[in-house]
Amino acid sequence: MNRWYGGIEAGGTKFVCVVGTGPGEVVAETRFSTTSPDETIRQVIEFFEPYTRRGELVAVGIASFGPVDLNPASPTYGYITTTPKPNWGGVDLHGQVQHALHLPVAFDTDVNVAAFGEHYWIPENRLLDPFLYITVGTGIGIGAFVNGRPLHGLIHAEAGHFAIPHNWEGDPFPGVCPYHGDCLEGLASGPAMARRWGEPAETLPVDHPAWNLEAEYIALALVNLIYAFSPQRIVLGGGVAQHPGLHEMIRSRVQRHLNGYLRSPMVLEKIDDYIVKPALGNRSGVFGALAMAMI
Amino acid sequence: MNRWYGGIEAGGTKFVCVVGTGPGEVVAETRFSTTSPDETIRQVIEFFEPYTRRGELVAVGIASFGPVDLNPASPTYGYITTTPKPNWGGVDLHGQVQHALHLPVAFDTDVNVAAFGEHYWIPENRLLDPFLYITVGTGIGIGAFVNGRPLHGLIHAEAGHFAIPHNWEGDPFPGVCPYHGDCLEGLASGPAMARRWGEPAETLPVDHPAWNLEAEYIALALVNLIYAFSPQRIVLGGGVAQHPGLHEMIRSRVQRHLNGYLRSPMVLEKIDDYIVKPALGNRSGVFGALAMAMI
Repeated sequence: MNRWYGGIEAGGTKFVCVVGTGPGEVVAETRFSTTSPDETIRQVIEFFEPYTRRGELVAVGIASFGPVDLNPASPTYGYITTTPKPNWGGVDLHGQVQHALHLPVAFDTDVNVAAFGEHYWIPENRLLDPFLYITVGTGIGIGAFVNGRPLHGLIHAEAGHFAIPHNWEGDPFPGVCPYHGDCLEGLASGPAMARRWGEPAETLPVDHPAWNLEAEYIALALVNLIYAFSPQRIVLGGGVAQHPGLHEMIRSRVQRHLNGYLRSPMVLEKIDDYIVKPALGNRSGVFGALAMAMI
Repeated sequence: MNRWYGGIEAGGTKFVCVVGTGPGEVVAETRFSTTSPDETIRQVIEFFEPYTRRGELVAVGIASFGPVDLNPASPTYGYITTTPKPNWGGVDLHGQVQHALHLPVAFDTDVNVAAFGEHYWIPENRLLDPFLYITVGTGIGIGAFVNGRPLHGLIHAEAGHFAIPHNWEGDPFPGVCPYHGDCLEGLASGPAMARRWGEPAETLPVDHPAWNLEAEYIALALVNLIYAFSPQRIVLGGGVAQHPGLHEMIRSRVQRHLNGYLRSPMVLEKIDDYIVKPALGNRSGVFGALAMAMI
């Protein structure tokens, strides 16, 4: 009998589900828009149903948008908690999937799972610890794999809300974060760019000054992550971060801000191998979810 | 026969050494100024010599000022590396102590060891993970205990050099960090306060505006640490941080900056139990070193 695993990337905009044993063996894959919790979760269950009916599915992993409750001792473990996304606050995503599929379900934040996916599936990453994943898109989030496990804690990392230097003279934009105004996400997320420049990030020309400013804010965030975690590698994912040339601009600004303080060859000479694109492209999360189901 | 352990807190200003089995059983203790490496390490060896001669000492732990090399595979493992402290750069602290005492020697940064000491010896801390220690004094450093172990990585945490918001109009002081100017340490270390206000932190009156500014910068650092690590507790140590009333000012500013975003009772209601003074006072490091020798 076949023995497959399931991966679910539960995003605020779309869901991606796979059945298989890894990036090299995908037997089914689907993606659909995130609508109401009931309809969306029903689509997840329907996708996996043929495999569970035949007893072929062993376990499932979920990479969820958040914030989520990761405390296994909490009555709301596996819930999406205080998301501003309408109708999704308080949804028991883990429980509903588990009850419908009658299978073990692993659960973590989208970014922790993406970090795990890049760490688990890419051989050259397997020995790197701490290992970070940062996404810059509709929101900014970080996932961390530290001392052999994903980082949990009081809640989970929320480094998208870092307080970073903001030069009000050079950039009088007040930021879009409803909680903090000009925190990192308030200044540098996709919606922040759209609001500041009056058009979406994806239509801003390659040579628009927007990208210098964006590189600067992301570089400041990476500098703080480097000082906090001393990571051995940082994967920089998310739609905004894939803008042509942006990785290069960010890397040189990271070096400029560190200014020689960290005497590591990774930072001084090999920064192209230190701050990298996701090797799994836009499937770090869903294959990370699959890996979580497997271990 | 007695079986004792040794703890060494190797600071840039002074060394502290103990022999015993923990805070409740100290059979010998000494502290002396940090002078030349040769003289200082000779004093360390002489202090432990009676116990090693009688075969009573099992192992020793060192909590070292830094930066240090923590990579066990490196030829300079256990060295102090690029410290600005004269004559101490390139000193093989771990190796010299190990060769002289012929004992196993555990080695980590002063702040990682202080975090470990507070975590290991204080029962209510034992289950808290991630667990952070931050010291604000001559320098600013953080130690982190994450997923059951101290945080290492490319080098080790250097969050004293966080890039934080600096309101140049309200505080035109350019900072004292030779690498970054107005990074956290450049703005908020003891030497930064002394330079900005023209007198040492310890003589500034309790109601001097210096303390509001200091609370603000430390609060911004803690906010970033909270977003990065989602720690379950933060110990705030170091000489500057013990100024009367400063902890209270910092706690309320942390809450103000988080602005309700993290819906955790620890942050919203129990912040006095979340950001705390070192339970071991100024001996977190030396007893952490002792604990490292024991495990």
